Amino acid sequence: MILDESGLEDLAVGAAMLGSGGGGDPYVGKLMAREALRAHGPVELVGLDDLDDDELVVAAGMMGAPGVMVEKIPNGDEVVRAVRSLGAYLGAPVKAVMSGEVGGLNSMIPVYAAARLGLPLVDADGTGRAFPEIHLSTYTIHGISATPLAMADEHGDTVIVDAVDNRRAETLARGITVDMGAVALVAAYPATAAELREAVVPGTIGRAREIGAAIRSAPRRDAPPVETAREAVGGTSVFEGKVVEVERRTERGFSTGHASLVGVDGYAGMRLRLDFQNEFLGARLDDAFVVTTPDLITALDPEDGTPIPAEALRYGARVAVIAIPCPAIWRSAAGLTLAGPRAFGYDVEYSPVEEGPASRH
Amino acid sequence: MILDESGLEDLAVGAAMLGSGGGGDPYVGKLMAREALRAHGPVELVGLDDLDDDELVVAAGMMGAPGVMVEKIPNGDEVVRAVRSLGAYLGAPVKAVMSGEVGGLNSMIPVYAAARLGLPLVDADGTGRAFPEIHLSTYTIHGISATPLAMADEHGDTVIVDAVDNRRAETLARGITVDMGAVALVAAYPATAAELREAVVPGTIGRAREIGAAIRSAPRRDAPPVETAREAVGGTSVFEGKVVEVERRTERGFSTGHASLVGVDGYAGMRLRLDFQNEFLGARLDDAFVVTTPDLITALDPEDGTPIPAEALRYGARVAVIAIPCPAIWRSAAGLTLAGPRAFGYDVEYSPVEEGPASRH
Repeated sequence: MILDESGLEDLAVGAAMLGSGGGGDPYVGKLMAREALRAHGPVELVGLDDLDDDELVVAAGMMGAPGVMVEKIPNGDEVVRAVRSLGAYLGAPVKAVMSGEVGGLNSMIPVYAAARLGLPLVDADGTGRAFPEIHLSTYTIHGISATPLAMADEHGDTVIVDAVDNRRAETLARGITVDMGAVALVAAYPATAAELREAVVPGTIGRAREIGAAIRSAPRRDAPPVETAREAVGGTSVFEGKVVEVERRTERGFSTGHASLVGVDGYAGMRLRLDFQNEFLGARLDDAFVVTTPDLITALDPEDGTPIPAEALRYGARVAVIAIPCPAIWRSAAGLTLAGPRAFGYDVEYSPVEEGPASRH
Repeated sequence: MILDESGLEDLAVGAAMLGSGGGGDPYVGKLMAREALRAHGPVELVGLDDLDDDELVVAAGMMGAPGVMVEKIPNGDEVVRAVRSLGAYLGAPVKAVMSGEVGGLNSMIPVYAAARLGLPLVDADGTGRAFPEIHLSTYTIHGISATPLAMADEHGDTVIVDAVDNRRAETLARGITVDMGAVALVAAYPATAAELREAVVPGTIGRAREIGAAIRSAPRRDAPPVETAREAVGGTSVFEGKVVEVERRTERGFSTGHASLVGVDGYAGMRLRLDFQNEFLGARLDDAFVVTTPDLITALDPEDGTPIPAEALRYGARVAVIAIPCPAIWRSAAGLTLAGPRAFGYDVEYSPVEEGPASRH
């Protein structure tokens, strides 16, 4: 399968749908990926089964506060340097790149890196959504080490982190990201194709592209764009309303805060609160949780059904909110311990979104 | 020349004399070094001229707040891991270790590392005193890169930093030190013997040992211990008094603050303020600077003439303060730009301590 410029927009939209409002605003990444595809030709999209067992794959992406990334556009050399440094450190050639998480920017950076490096892109990601911290991944659940990982910044600095576990990798890499200027380009989770086959969520890149295509190509007379988008991702309607408050701060390399919405149409008189730490993590309808992590929360533009990253939510904007079931692995005991509501400080049991509000259980 | 257990105490005392109150409290390092010398035998002390031109030398030491080091004794594997990781990263065998700065702990760690690794210790250091930041070194003045450098912590984490310049190396390594728990063991400034010959201060380890021996062996009936110590280092008397105030905080991997002393004997009625950021940086007599960085300020115990690290200054302690001329390189334009009084925020011209108080110029 080939990924070229024509599929890039669909991938950007679909990946942002699956990124739970995070993984970085795709806009900057899309510009970078398009430029690289034009200069270096299309990228081959491969399954892990297409790779030899011992071929080395690394995840390429951005770490830090998404808002800063919009202001400080990477020149692209950073991620190439990160991947090359990691390969050199490991003393082994990198044979393919992949997304550590599906999400706006972090689905575009690997396309860019693959094009620049002349490597295939693996049709999979290591999270099945986006999460704000490195160790919150299906790699971690399956015992794949995030390190050695390589980080690079716009100044030309490179850092290699070799941590004892993935939580320490997150702590160290987060601090380094802050000192790199709140944004770093990262190559992480080096592993062989054989190790990755059971450890990652397969097919998410292809699926994201299909979701994007479905949203783009649906005739508007058949259904409202939000309905088309919701159906394309198998999601549930949560709310429709207007943003009346956004509180957002950039701290320790995260963009953290919440947005409050007042309902319109069927939701008139109700109020929704969306919490985010880069990604949307919980939605409360009139103070009761209706969706929590690890299920996905996506804000959509009612005009065209495209996703609005948490970073781009603005006062006064009209927004539809949908929820999407997370990959099954996140509903395991290990998955919920790692990234369930309590892992983010919510004193509530996880309830799968398709079974109704968490707060009723 | 051989460095064994019998010379260790003298080296510790003499190095702390030359460390301007910093470079870490030697006590913990002395215990580590003694243990390693007992287990692995004496260390060979070599000059840079004894090494082949292309032999790789690295500086081994501690980074962080000295006070934390006293509470968290490293098990020693950290610095061995740091040196080995750096050698592996460079793909070249490390042939000798040295002190990046002369000072209490940071003269002991290289002894420990040399003993553990079976390598010679170079009789030189990269600063000619101690300074609170990595890039404040004679290496920097001579264009030797601090990176790649390797850092290791008690958890088992290792980080390699490859920075664009020595100031960025400091920024990145400082942040990593904080995330490593305010203390990290570091192998840095890898360079060949040929590169180092012009770039470092030769002979400081041997000199420190001689200073320590002179203080230890002087008959007390001949002169007060402080006088013996002052003469051994070629220093100037600054003050003698009692500590009436100590303000000290640990922040961003530094131990920062000041101590105030009221004079006794010939200094009765006067007041001295000592500022420190790990090391002593300035001394003000009744609000007028009498010594500033890059000259050395050393606090001595009047009982035995041994140095008291800034970290160990306590309320009520009786202290003699002496100043020692810094190595000539620090008085060059480049040296003063890097580490003169203005580099530390003092609005005063540098005046060599032997020419009298800075504030009078």
